[in-house]
Amino acid sequence: MQLPSTTTLLLRVEHHACYITFNRPRYRNAMNRAMAQELLQVFDWLTRAQEIRALVLRGAGSTFSSGADLRELAELSKPESVRPVGPSKNASSDGAIADHNRTLGLVCRSAAELDIPIVAAIEGAALGTGLGLACISDIVLAVQGAIFGLPETRLGLVPAHIAPFAVERIGAPATRRLALTGARFDADAAVPLGLVDQVYDTTHEMEQALHQILAQVVSCEPAANRATKRLLRRLGPIVSDNLLDHAAHVYSSHVLSPSGREGVAAFLAHREPNFKPQDT
Amino acid sequence: MQLPSTTTLLLRVEHHACYITFNRPRYRNAMNRAMAQELLQVFDWLTRAQEIRALVLRGAGSTFSSGADLRELAELSKPESVRPVGPSKNASSDGAIADHNRTLGLVCRSAAELDIPIVAAIEGAALGTGLGLACISDIVLAVQGAIFGLPETRLGLVPAHIAPFAVERIGAPATRRLALTGARFDADAAVPLGLVDQVYDTTHEMEQALHQILAQVVSCEPAANRATKRLLRRLGPIVSDNLLDHAAHVYSSHVLSPSGREGVAAFLAHREPNFKPQDT
Amino acid sequence: MQLPSTTTLLLRVEHHACYITFNRPRYRNAMNRAMAQELLQVFDWLTRAQEIRALVLRGAGSTFSSGADLRELAELSKPESVRPVGPSKNASSDGAIADHNRTLGLVCRSAAELDIPIVAAIEGAALGTGLGLACISDIVLAVQGAIFGLPETRLGLVPAHIAPFAVERIGAPATRRLALTGARFDADAAVPLGLVDQVYDTTHEMEQALHQILAQVVSCEPAANRATKRLLRRLGPIVSDNLLDHAAHVYSSHVLSPSGREGVAAFLAHREPNFKPQDT
Repeated sequence: MQLPSTTTLLLRVEHHACYITFNRPRYRNAMNRAMAQELLQVFDWLTRAQEIRALVLRGAGSTFSSGADLRELAELSKPESVRPVGPSKNASSDGAIADHNRTLGLVCRSAAELDIPIVAAIEGAALGTGLGLACISDIVLAVQGAIFGLPETRLGLVPAHIAPFAVERIGAPATRRLALTGARFDADAAVPLGLVDQVYDTTHEMEQALHQILAQVVSCEPAANRATKRLLRRLGPIVSDNLLDHAAHVYSSHVLSPSGREGVAAFLAHREPNFKPQDT
Repeated sequence: MQLPSTTTLLLRVEHHACYITFNRPRYRNAMNRAMAQELLQVFDWLTRAQEIRALVLRGAGSTFSSGADLRELAELSKPESVRPVGPSKNASSDGAIADHNRTLGLVCRSAAELDIPIVAAIEGAALGTGLGLACISDIVLAVQGAIFGLPETRLGLVPAHIAPFAVERIGAPATRRLALTGARFDADAAVPLGLVDQVYDTTHEMEQALHQILAQVVSCEPAANRATKRLLRRLGPIVSDNLLDHAAHVYSSHVLSPSGREGVAAFLAHREPNFKPQDT
Repeated sequence: MQLPSTTTLLLRVEHHACYITFNRPRYRNAMNRAMAQELLQVFDWLTRAQEIRALVLRGAGSTFSSGADLRELAELSKPESVRPVGPSKNASSDGAIADHNRTLGLVCRSAAELDIPIVAAIEGAALGTGLGLACISDIVLAVQGAIFGLPETRLGLVPAHIAPFAVERIGAPATRRLALTGARFDADAAVPLGLVDQVYDTTHEMEQALHQILAQVVSCEPAANRATKRLLRRLGPIVSDNLLDHAAHVYSSHVLSPSGREGVAAFLAHREPNFKPQDT
């Protein structure tokens, strides 16, 4: 089967493993709508590619993923950018942002529903949605220097679509701690959280470990692995359409609030946000 | 807005943080009915105090909280102390204890439902309900020398109202281990459990860290933080009224059993309990 | 009360603790149908033995439990071994395996539903169902040299009946990691997973710790401990009959698939399995 054609992702199949590399290094692999749609296409392809036994997530340019593309979000927030997007019949600027956030939630859920193991191999930043993609992975490897965090609230935004997946991987208390402080933490601190399984000194060492893990996966019988992952998914949290809708609504309303607009503008201008009390 | 007036709690607001200090040091900050009611009042006040961005829980006199006030419990267990308390129309001594336990459960649930982050800064004992209050906190700091435990079963009692909150923070297996052995453990042992996030050598160091964490919280946008905590609460365990009722019933029946009476009496007399097999 | 009479288990009562020792050392304590039935009998006996305050699980011959007895499974998979087993009216070879797996699931669930604390004291291998029995324990001790793993998928099988109990103890992400790689890991690696509570250098040291823990359990008031464990069980995952049925069906279908037959045959012949792509 032929791999989908993508522009924001590098795709490669090797020894029964599919490697997806987030490839917008100029934007620190920020996830824009194009990347989210392409990820959904690849995940859909994977549901039919029975010869693929594992999925590896990586980022180009020594970054995993810096999260949602705030430059695009700012564009979508402009009054003049009202345009029909997605399934909503009465799409508005609000709708476009909610649609995009719902797509990010779908990316996480679709990944979590794949019946092959997912390994995240993390260098550099894994923030926001990037951290969400680590959370849905079955095995998370990181190199010293990797940085994790849920910085959304610092910008007036809400990590709404990431929350259920973070709760599954690191528990509700740790998710609250990370989200409500916006603090960044390194790979060593991510291990006791349960976010990272193993930390390596160099990328080379991480890649060697990755190959060993993939060899272990391939030594398992394919149908047994698929059945096991499906069974375990039944035991996990159900991320319902309603929950995705609710998360998208909460996310959108904060993006479009005065504080959210100020937060995103400040981020893009590399300055501290200046939130006004009455805006909140 | 003016802080509620309290006698068992010291209250202070500083830099958008509300500090609650359990202040019955003579009784190792044991939680009696007055303290529970005052906590509920402060939590209710906090739901309206939009300028408050974080809640800090501490204890006076180098103790966090030694748990429910067993002296008061013994009073409520006396046959002659039958009196109408709480909403029950047919209140009895049994009803008074169940009412009190339900209030303790409400204290934990109301704290967990606040939409601002809660930081527990723990010195000395955090036992029983005190441990429960650590469990509902989003961030738990402790000084070397802090002591944790669920000693209820040693006295013939059941940590009924604490159980759901302990399960959320440290998981069901660890909660069972602590509750069924009654063992006490120190701050370093509380970290791998997921109960304590960070241990400090001195109170001064813990306070410095506390200020840094509060600065992080305040650097987040207020409405985004509130929405995030509300969203995460939706994903957590639902502590229903029925569960509180059931816990209060179980708790009360054990307090009033021969073994429970003996356990509390022994505790107050600083002696080992002498449980009789036929009492159990 | 007299202990049940058993052939695959050594039973002993000492100081209010019941010790169950898996006793098929020649087969590395593999759990066959006889052992599963005897365990269910002992658990049933324990529900009536009010003087027993704790259950200890151990294995004879420096092995805890190597999991389901694959030799017996191979027998049950033979076409000629079709025979009525269990409650199914139309029992077939398929039915016998599903019945056996359901019984293994019942063993785990019945243990988890006991209202006394369970301590697993692990030497050597705790694999598959053996790991499942560690997962349902409230306290897990291990000696250096203990080995843990979910090797089922390496043989084309699915750890279906173990999954819900592993998810409760070590979380869904770690369960997926172990099950989808089939990797084995030692006692030190089992501690951060939350599978093992404490590791000891020698069996003697583990036994000393075991006696201390049992002394702590016995110092708790019996009825309070039972009520606490029942209450905590209410807060845990419900392992429904439907889930056991589904797990048994999934397990059986993989045992009887060409890959499952090849995996079991390879295991019994001490060779690597040779899975054919079309078998999966």
